[in-house]
Amino acid sequence: MVYVTRLEHFNAAHRLFNPAWSKEQNEQAFGKCANENWHGHNYELYVTVKGNPDPDTGFLFDARQLGALIREKVTDKLDHKNLNLDVDFMRDKMCSSENLSIEIWKQLSPHLPSGVSLHCIKLYETPRIYIEYFGE
Amino acid sequence: MVYVTRLEHFNAAHRLFNPAWSKEQNEQAFGKCANENWHGHNYELYVTVKGNPDPDTGFLFDARQLGALIREKVTDKLDHKNLNLDVDFMRDKMCSSENLSIEIWKQLSPHLPSGVSLHCIKLYETPRIYIEYFGE
Amino acid sequence: MVYVTRLEHFNAAHRLFNPAWSKEQNEQAFGKCANENWHGHNYELYVTVKGNPDPDTGFLFDARQLGALIREKVTDKLDHKNLNLDVDFMRDKMCSSENLSIEIWKQLSPHLPSGVSLHCIKLYETPRIYIEYFGE
Amino acid sequence: MVYVTRLEHFNAAHRLFNPAWSKEQNEQAFGKCANENWHGHNYELYVTVKGNPDPDTGFLFDARQLGALIREKVTDKLDHKNLNLDVDFMRDKMCSSENLSIEIWKQLSPHLPSGVSLHCIKLYETPRIYIEYFGE
Amino acid sequence: MVYVTRLEHFNAAHRLFNPAWSKEQNEQAFGKCANENWHGHNYELYVTVKGNPDPDTGFLFDARQLGALIREKVTDKLDHKNLNLDVDFMRDKMCSSENLSIEIWKQLSPHLPSGVSLHCIKLYETPRIYIEYFGE
Amino acid sequence: MVYVTRLEHFNAAHRLFNPAWSKEQNEQAFGKCANENWHGHNYELYVTVKGNPDPDTGFLFDARQLGALIREKVTDKLDHKNLNLDVDFMRDKMCSSENLSIEIWKQLSPHLPSGVSLHCIKLYETPRIYIEYFGE
Repeated sequence: MVYVTRLEHFNAAHRLFNPAWSKEQNEQAFGKCANENWHGHNYELYVTVKGNPDPDTGFLFDARQLGALIREKVTDKLDHKNLNLDVDFMRDKMCSSENLSIEIWKQLSPHLPSGVSLHCIKLYETPRIYIEYFGE
Repeated sequence: MVYVTRLEHFNAAHRLFNPAWSKEQNEQAFGKCANENWHGHNYELYVTVKGNPDPDTGFLFDARQLGALIREKVTDKLDHKNLNLDVDFMRDKMCSSENLSIEIWKQLSPHLPSGVSLHCIKLYETPRIYIEYFGE
Repeated sequence: MVYVTRLEHFNAAHRLFNPAWSKEQNEQAFGKCANENWHGHNYELYVTVKGNPDPDTGFLFDARQLGALIREKVTDKLDHKNLNLDVDFMRDKMCSSENLSIEIWKQLSPHLPSGVSLHCIKLYETPRIYIEYFGE
Repeated sequence: MVYVTRLEHFNAAHRLFNPAWSKEQNEQAFGKCANENWHGHNYELYVTVKGNPDPDTGFLFDARQLGALIREKVTDKLDHKNLNLDVDFMRDKMCSSENLSIEIWKQLSPHLPSGVSLHCIKLYETPRIYIEYFGE
Repeated sequence: MVYVTRLEHFNAAHRLFNPAWSKEQNEQAFGKCANENWHGHNYELYVTVKGNPDPDTGFLFDARQLGALIREKVTDKLDHKNLNLDVDFMRDKMCSSENLSIEIWKQLSPHLPSGVSLHCIKLYETPRIYIEYFGE
Repeated sequence: MVYVTRLEHFNAAHRLFNPAWSKEQNEQAFGKCANENWHGHNYELYVTVKGNPDPDTGFLFDARQLGALIREKVTDKLDHKNLNLDVDFMRDKMCSSENLSIEIWKQLSPHLPSGVSLHCIKLYETPRIYIEYFGE
């Protein structure tokens, strides 16, 4: 079994706030991340799939096709968007990178070809903070 | 003469649009960067100063002090902010990285100590796009 | 379960030598790393914690708090220090990155909040050499 | 148990094509990677070994020795070479990074010292695509 | 005046050899870079343009358009190609990164819009070697 | 005219202190950088040379030869050393990166071949601080 990882990226605005809380509670919990006028990031998304290489091609899953799938199902829906307002699969969810990683997994995993399974979503919010999710 | 460069960063939301234009004109000129719900970036800011090292310290300008000055005068005002809405020195300006670099120069240059002059503002909007401004 | 990783760094001097050995034995085992006048590195420290996100915040552990904890318990004690001479928790230990990673684990693991457990200490000694320790 | 990783690199030409297929089939499967005049990459190779540190040295395996072993057994045979034509251990194999990672594992694993075992071969073909192989 | 830089990349094979020389002379001058079966690189190309921002857009030259121009005129002709065999503008030239940078300048400079001039071609052959050319 | 840049690196210990000053003055001026037990860095050294490419090779100066020259004249004398104690050309000088860059220039510039001149010494002390020196 081999693991193939592909990097894609997207630039987005977001805001951390809990609508059930007061403005003061949100500022206490999230600090400057609660700014009501939003802030944003260049997100770097590493998607890892696993399985056995095809003997005819030597590929587990052509990295160009993997990149196209990530863009179609995930990053085209996130790039230059507001994660709180513009993204169907983040609606009514706390817009943390933890939750975003879990939702990206759900968007991608049903669309992988037979013999290829999703192993890890790794999402850099900044060069110094990243989240990993392995599906459970 | 030596050149000393210090990297600081900030995460911010912004939007590209010209208020004198229609929505269609803005979308034609700026594409997805005109999204009315904003998007954002992890900006990386390299500030370069130049001058002669002090014989007593070997320093042109202590990098810790240069970092503190950049944070006080520039990045504390930009980090986790909306560049179009929250930043005094960007008010009524097109919020491109070109213009942001020029305004950052204006914020920093009056505050450098004697014998140290500002040489370059280099601003990465993404890892693949950056602006340089040399003051004229 | 999600994994959250935070990067912090420190700059330190160290030396590899076994006090039970002769100078020749140390030079044979450690080469230029045994230089009696020390050498040093910019260490990059990635700390990974794991657990379930809090439904109210979407966070496993706020990355700003994780960074503050790492600095308080670990990197403030290592930064701009001599690892052999200045660091309580490295006293009488061979000052390899392997041993340093294990000791960093011991410094951090008792201080994580309920529901958050330490998963990995990853320590870059140079951009081309790193150590990982998973606690056992 | 600790894990030690060493980065080495090599620059090589290669081509993806299946000799049992027609030119059209190869172009359909591999696109521009099938160019009969070859293309190439700067490969980055991360080799991870695991085991317990030696109490006398604090080392699992001296990173300088690990680097020398990787160069002798692997990268000296790949650097500035054509992976399809010049490399004994890739002969008659599809020249994908998946297969190359598996073969690199086979070249290295018999040569590690007692108490040190190979954990992972991680091979970057480009900064945006990498393969991992864990030996089974 | 501001400077805007855009990064694009291409992966290519090449070989260094002078057809007027014997095999021995080529091997003496170019070492393993003369391998008759080729080798290759992931080239990183930074293109810098300069001029005054447009008051209506805040842009000197939209980075998306600059990227599209670089791909059309340069990297689409180089990516997954053999630089010695497949590239019109390198025919009968020594295939060094020095010469490649000069030829890339010639391909791009006639196609920049009014008010925008080419400032620098910076070409990384590996992460440790790069060439800059400023047009004269 | 083209510019060729080569990256080399070295790991060293150093300390900032002025022997004409009291301990208190040194701590006030240099803070934790004055630690009497030293600290250290992974220095990254970019050396840029300029000139016209040789028509027979396409090279200004073979990057392998440039690397060998930098190692022989500079980095072999600095790597795994104490910059204050072990380095002839830093004796009796304040051990700042500013002064180190100037001395590296002096070590290298007399040894370049005819037609190749030194353009810039760029020295990263950390990934966030670097010095440039152009020879005057």
